Amino acid sequence: MTSSPLLTPAAAAPATDAFLPRFRAVRHQTEALCRPLLPEDTVVQPVIDVSPPKWHLAHTTWFFETFLLTQYQPGYQVFHPDYAFLFNSYYNSLGSRVNRADRGTLSRPALHEVYAYRAHVDACMEELLLANLELPAAFAEVMELGLQHEQQHQELLVTDIKYILSTSPLAPAYLPASTDAPVAAAPPLPAARWLPVPGGVYRIGYEGEGFCFDNEQAAHEVLVPDFALQNRLVTNGEYLEFMQAGGYSDFRYWLGEGWELVQAQQWQAPLYWVQRPEGWFRFTHHGLRPLDLNAPVTHVSFYEADAYAHWQGARLPTEQEWEVVARRYRPEATTGTFLESRSFDPQPLPADADPDQCHQLLGDAWEWTYSAYHPYPGYERAPGALGEYNGKFMLNQLVLRGGSCATPESHIRLTYRNFFHPDKRWQFTGIRLAR
Amino acid sequence: MTSSPLLTPAAAAPATDAFLPRFRAVRHQTEALCRPLLPEDTVVQPVIDVSPPKWHLAHTTWFFETFLLTQYQPGYQVFHPDYAFLFNSYYNSLGSRVNRADRGTLSRPALHEVYAYRAHVDACMEELLLANLELPAAFAEVMELGLQHEQQHQELLVTDIKYILSTSPLAPAYLPASTDAPVAAAPPLPAARWLPVPGGVYRIGYEGEGFCFDNEQAAHEVLVPDFALQNRLVTNGEYLEFMQAGGYSDFRYWLGEGWELVQAQQWQAPLYWVQRPEGWFRFTHHGLRPLDLNAPVTHVSFYEADAYAHWQGARLPTEQEWEVVARRYRPEATTGTFLESRSFDPQPLPADADPDQCHQLLGDAWEWTYSAYHPYPGYERAPGALGEYNGKFMLNQLVLRGGSCATPESHIRLTYRNFFHPDKRWQFTGIRLAR
Amino acid sequence: MTSSPLLTPAAAAPATDAFLPRFRAVRHQTEALCRPLLPEDTVVQPVIDVSPPKWHLAHTTWFFETFLLTQYQPGYQVFHPDYAFLFNSYYNSLGSRVNRADRGTLSRPALHEVYAYRAHVDACMEELLLANLELPAAFAEVMELGLQHEQQHQELLVTDIKYILSTSPLAPAYLPASTDAPVAAAPPLPAARWLPVPGGVYRIGYEGEGFCFDNEQAAHEVLVPDFALQNRLVTNGEYLEFMQAGGYSDFRYWLGEGWELVQAQQWQAPLYWVQRPEGWFRFTHHGLRPLDLNAPVTHVSFYEADAYAHWQGARLPTEQEWEVVARRYRPEATTGTFLESRSFDPQPLPADADPDQCHQLLGDAWEWTYSAYHPYPGYERAPGALGEYNGKFMLNQLVLRGGSCATPESHIRLTYRNFFHPDKRWQFTGIRLAR
Amino acid sequence: MTSSPLLTPAAAAPATDAFLPRFRAVRHQTEALCRPLLPEDTVVQPVIDVSPPKWHLAHTTWFFETFLLTQYQPGYQVFHPDYAFLFNSYYNSLGSRVNRADRGTLSRPALHEVYAYRAHVDACMEELLLANLELPAAFAEVMELGLQHEQQHQELLVTDIKYILSTSPLAPAYLPASTDAPVAAAPPLPAARWLPVPGGVYRIGYEGEGFCFDNEQAAHEVLVPDFALQNRLVTNGEYLEFMQAGGYSDFRYWLGEGWELVQAQQWQAPLYWVQRPEGWFRFTHHGLRPLDLNAPVTHVSFYEADAYAHWQGARLPTEQEWEVVARRYRPEATTGTFLESRSFDPQPLPADADPDQCHQLLGDAWEWTYSAYHPYPGYERAPGALGEYNGKFMLNQLVLRGGSCATPESHIRLTYRNFFHPDKRWQFTGIRLAR
Repeated sequence: MTSSPLLTPAAAAPATDAFLPRFRAVRHQTEALCRPLLPEDTVVQPVIDVSPPKWHLAHTTWFFETFLLTQYQPGYQVFHPDYAFLFNSYYNSLGSRVNRADRGTLSRPALHEVYAYRAHVDACMEELLLANLELPAAFAEVMELGLQHEQQHQELLVTDIKYILSTSPLAPAYLPASTDAPVAAAPPLPAARWLPVPGGVYRIGYEGEGFCFDNEQAAHEVLVPDFALQNRLVTNGEYLEFMQAGGYSDFRYWLGEGWELVQAQQWQAPLYWVQRPEGWFRFTHHGLRPLDLNAPVTHVSFYEADAYAHWQGARLPTEQEWEVVARRYRPEATTGTFLESRSFDPQPLPADADPDQCHQLLGDAWEWTYSAYHPYPGYERAPGALGEYNGKFMLNQLVLRGGSCATPESHIRLTYRNFFHPDKRWQFTGIRLAR
Repeated sequence: MTSSPLLTPAAAAPATDAFLPRFRAVRHQTEALCRPLLPEDTVVQPVIDVSPPKWHLAHTTWFFETFLLTQYQPGYQVFHPDYAFLFNSYYNSLGSRVNRADRGTLSRPALHEVYAYRAHVDACMEELLLANLELPAAFAEVMELGLQHEQQHQELLVTDIKYILSTSPLAPAYLPASTDAPVAAAPPLPAARWLPVPGGVYRIGYEGEGFCFDNEQAAHEVLVPDFALQNRLVTNGEYLEFMQAGGYSDFRYWLGEGWELVQAQQWQAPLYWVQRPEGWFRFTHHGLRPLDLNAPVTHVSFYEADAYAHWQGARLPTEQEWEVVARRYRPEATTGTFLESRSFDPQPLPADADPDQCHQLLGDAWEWTYSAYHPYPGYERAPGALGEYNGKFMLNQLVLRGGSCATPESHIRLTYRNFFHPDKRWQFTGIRLAR
Repeated sequence: MTSSPLLTPAAAAPATDAFLPRFRAVRHQTEALCRPLLPEDTVVQPVIDVSPPKWHLAHTTWFFETFLLTQYQPGYQVFHPDYAFLFNSYYNSLGSRVNRADRGTLSRPALHEVYAYRAHVDACMEELLLANLELPAAFAEVMELGLQHEQQHQELLVTDIKYILSTSPLAPAYLPASTDAPVAAAPPLPAARWLPVPGGVYRIGYEGEGFCFDNEQAAHEVLVPDFALQNRLVTNGEYLEFMQAGGYSDFRYWLGEGWELVQAQQWQAPLYWVQRPEGWFRFTHHGLRPLDLNAPVTHVSFYEADAYAHWQGARLPTEQEWEVVARRYRPEATTGTFLESRSFDPQPLPADADPDQCHQLLGDAWEWTYSAYHPYPGYERAPGALGEYNGKFMLNQLVLRGGSCATPESHIRLTYRNFFHPDKRWQFTGIRLAR
Repeated sequence: MTSSPLLTPAAAAPATDAFLPRFRAVRHQTEALCRPLLPEDTVVQPVIDVSPPKWHLAHTTWFFETFLLTQYQPGYQVFHPDYAFLFNSYYNSLGSRVNRADRGTLSRPALHEVYAYRAHVDACMEELLLANLELPAAFAEVMELGLQHEQQHQELLVTDIKYILSTSPLAPAYLPASTDAPVAAAPPLPAARWLPVPGGVYRIGYEGEGFCFDNEQAAHEVLVPDFALQNRLVTNGEYLEFMQAGGYSDFRYWLGEGWELVQAQQWQAPLYWVQRPEGWFRFTHHGLRPLDLNAPVTHVSFYEADAYAHWQGARLPTEQEWEVVARRYRPEATTGTFLESRSFDPQPLPADADPDQCHQLLGDAWEWTYSAYHPYPGYERAPGALGEYNGKFMLNQLVLRGGSCATPESHIRLTYRNFFHPDKRWQFTGIRLAR
């Protein structure tokens, strides 16, 4: 298999029109996610990590325009000469761009102009795909990447929208609340079970025929010690016990830089948690909602995840351990919350969930691992702009595994490596304990 | 005359319905200014000085709700309990509020909700005014202040909108460009004339029957030396000569803190000036436009105004000198650009303007004076929240006189004292030389 | 009298050796002030305002070397080619220099090298002065300025040393404590008296034959309203009442930017005040000492002085008012604490001090005025580097009058205009009330 | 063997007086390193990473006082009650302390007071050691740790002194330059050889009888791929080629956060390199010296090391690879520069160095690895204050291996794990390539 250093395409390049249904579905999904928003919601950037939805809509479009239309569509003229400056995210190869911190200062182009941009590029892409030209294998690779890239931004849209709406004291709902009965009544979940795994040499990394990101390769063998992993994620109720035991005020549980952050930011709870006289609430896509004690805790930083594990006398898994377990159990057999469920909140585990199964491996919440996001052995950055896609971020971040309730189910894999800095909390990040 | 320390009301309180026409006109004017905007434009805050138009719309409404409806309308319920937190600008007396720097992070309440807020408060205000209750004199004072306050925010709307649109490389126009012939053809303006004024004791400050702000009082006598003032504002063409003579790279013309700013900010020209191969342009409310050499220079900081004066071997006037001249000549007899002209750009002086008149005293551009914004003798802050209106800002700012092309003509007076920190450039600030 | 724009020299240039006794005395005084210090004390810069004593020793020397020896001593070679970079304070005319904030990062040249520099320059200066060459009038002007300049740095040395020693929890004494009996026993001072002054035209500014700084000129007439000034400075005891009345927690007394500072810096008392179970103490040049309730309060910012005045229903004087009073009374007849007394702490007024006299006008504490440090009418900056001495600072600062316990008595005048930003507290700054 | 989680002591606790010779030698070594300094040099903190030498002298003493004397010497009174606040580095367990960034603002206690502190603690320690009490095993553990800790600070003293002296434009020498002939004449070193290592399971981590830090344990097996390592460090000459090839201006070689740093800090060369008309120089402990092209490059950040490797088509080793090679070759058989050589500059390899040996593994320069500083499997933090020694830093830093020319030879081991953030350059950090 001739492997691109960036991604692994299918063995043979498909006819270009084979991409059409997925192209339409993915592009439509992005717009569907933005439909409940007002134009005002699509402009702001309350913190540097959160990009305006308008920017996501345009940036994903710029990707197809830049890497496909200007390359493969003869005579293609860019929609607007300034858009490359406005909507390039971080590709030095493609010239200067708006400072990331300034994305929220731009009211123009307006939302309707961005939709016009999308429509224009979509039409040109459809034309290109339908033409069924004999395009080089690289076309299929980048086409695939463009779709996966847009799916990644769908997850960011979900989390960025949540953050944007949360800044208002009005606590506006993105979607109307579902009519579920109140959550408080459920009996507590049984304690998590430890699933033991014998040490040994295991194979890690992607090696199938389908798509994967370059950072999932090369597949290789690792030596893993005897260890055990919990069979489900840590719940809100369990995390609340940590808080009530003084977890946020005892430095002994914390890494040094985490403790500094707790004090500087005056963290007292996960992001979005609000204490009221009647109990704990969380801001959700449905507005402010009572805390569901049996649902997985989310919106915790690595530091909080690690401190919680310390308090429990446990630790966080390495990404190798996680993948060994994930390959051993059948995550596809367990229910998980994904983007497609449009609940945007991890669901509690059923009380009678099989205690011998490893639950919530895929979907629900990204699981912090105590593994640095470094290259796998044999990894090499691709040449050109797409070589900037993953490789240049391989430092100072930690690997998260398993996807979340905001991840498209068709996007996630057991070998998928997500990565964030350890202080980030605006993603659906959760905790699974190892020992 | 019993004078409130905050403002000087008319001698007798008018019937409340006498306010109705002005109330309607002022409130309508604010909305008319926002009509050309898209919702997206009303949300952003590209720098801390610039507030989102949505915020201006709501804050001016909050003023009437807080200071009038909740005081004088029996049984009035606030429109929304969180709006006081969201739309209080700086009144410590009225509790905590959104950090000024975070006004641009709030997408909600949405623009249409803010308009609903305006409509609600307008209806209640009309009801109150029409009831023609026997309200205390203080009602009329605060009613008048509410109108003047909203007029001040109209000027800020104009300048904030300009800044907001300027941040996009698309250089969008707020209004379509007028069909005027190109400006470049006009012959240069004759040199400014020096108008000499004999030194002596002059009276300064407001003392009529109408409205004025508390900072224009008490009227008092000042001793002014012999001096001369130029009979018009410095033009773009004259300022360009300063630039071409190396004004921005020679520290000798600059105050120390100004020179540090020039270097730190890499200032090379007034705000909004853009150099292109075909010459100098300025960003305006009509998009990017060629520089009109005969129009008054605007968007300069005090430091630039002072450095220009140094380079010319002149100086900036004191506010006393300015007022002495303004009372001596008849500014109302000269044409000036005001908010009502909706050109939002100071107009050049006619080539044949009377050389013995002092032009552009009112309207066109705020004129930096070398006078600190300090209290006049006998000034006292009013008690209560409205005492925070002006008094607490009387340090570290400089007085500007005469209004600008964004000031309502009915709002400005010869005794009016505006004030900004010396580094500010986003207002229509200009230069008149003294010696 | 032909006046230099920078300073007013004596009518005729004296023989150069006439400067010798003062030159020796001033230079010796500087070193005497540093004698109690350890080398370690001379290096650090705990905040940007405070320069290392080593730097003061060298910078004052650099002044004579740069402005006199290299100009008037034929063939003079600079002591070290890097010293101009190291010891230039702020003269852009004289090239690049160490960032002000980095003065405390430089351990070298060592203290003994700086003393060697002083000895070298002193010897060359003595040689030049003794030669009694026919030097131009400019020489005498700059010579005088060099001496006055070094006296200014003597005051800064006193205050910077205090700050430096205060940062250590050891509270080390600069000088051994005097053997005075404990201060607490003294009976409270009688209330301050208000001295009324009739309004009218008064003359302000320096116009004698002796030396003055350029900022004290041109002398001119001002119109002053009826006002009254207190006949002594506000005491520690009176200021303590303000604190106990909640002065630091009530925004109504404060200017807006002052209130922000109070909160950001968590100010609760003047600089150097320390509360202990047994009462209030201050850090002094003699270590930690109980608060003397009858001594003038010092180390307050303009904001604190202004808030105190508000609380008292009074205000701060303008510099014109201050000078009118100072010319009317005979400050030289009252005792004041000056540098020469080497107590470095303002002394309390005797309980039987003449109630009709205006006390503590000179010495003891710099008195904040509510006057911006702006140029007097007719002021012009001198050409060349010395034109940077005063003129470029004439914005954003406030005038202080009267000198302090750290000012050389031979350096101060009734017309002397000192200036600091309103947030500064490390100088001996105090309060006198006006109304 | 009962293993402390913090460190591995010798199997049986020795008689306490057995520590005496080493205690004396280590304590003496620290003072010997400070002997060439002036008091001024011992106070300053030019950047936050660099602590004042005075602080190092006191902090290492505080360690013995706090962890041994107050625990094991009955009736011991601390030397000064404020010293715990002043000289605690980062132990939250032991209470509040001076902000790290403020260490350089404290001129007191003076250097001679710190030496008095050392003498006092040394005398008490000698008394305790000579008493040969039956102390618990924990005493020997902490005693050993105190000595190792002081050796770590010896290295920091060497690098901090270098930084401190480098800030002065005078480029003062810490020690007189040696009399070596000029370096430029040496012929270029032969190209480095690649030493291939077969992949497989290798044992990593400390497991002997002697001392090691807790972070070197537990020893465990790792699976390492086939790889090759260069047999010597990258030289100044080789790094200069990277610079001359535009290495600092081509983003493609850099990690994203590294490239941002290059631009923000305007890095053009390793720290301490200075370009002069006659060529490249480096600031050294002997002042400014011409660049020795054959000596190992030092004072590079991880980002620079990684970019250099990219440019070479190679990569940095993992710490596992490094240790496998280090155990395979006999580093003790090769010459390395250590603290004891007092040259404080890595020496060039002899031109005829054995090409089959792996040179410069120990001493000379710390070698950046592409391994995050994370806990080894089974690692647990010790309870109490000493648990803060290493464990809480195990995030966001990278492992460096092999010691440097500033490391005591008796302090370094093949399993030793040093760690720094990737932007740090003030240590003797160098590069060895892998592939």
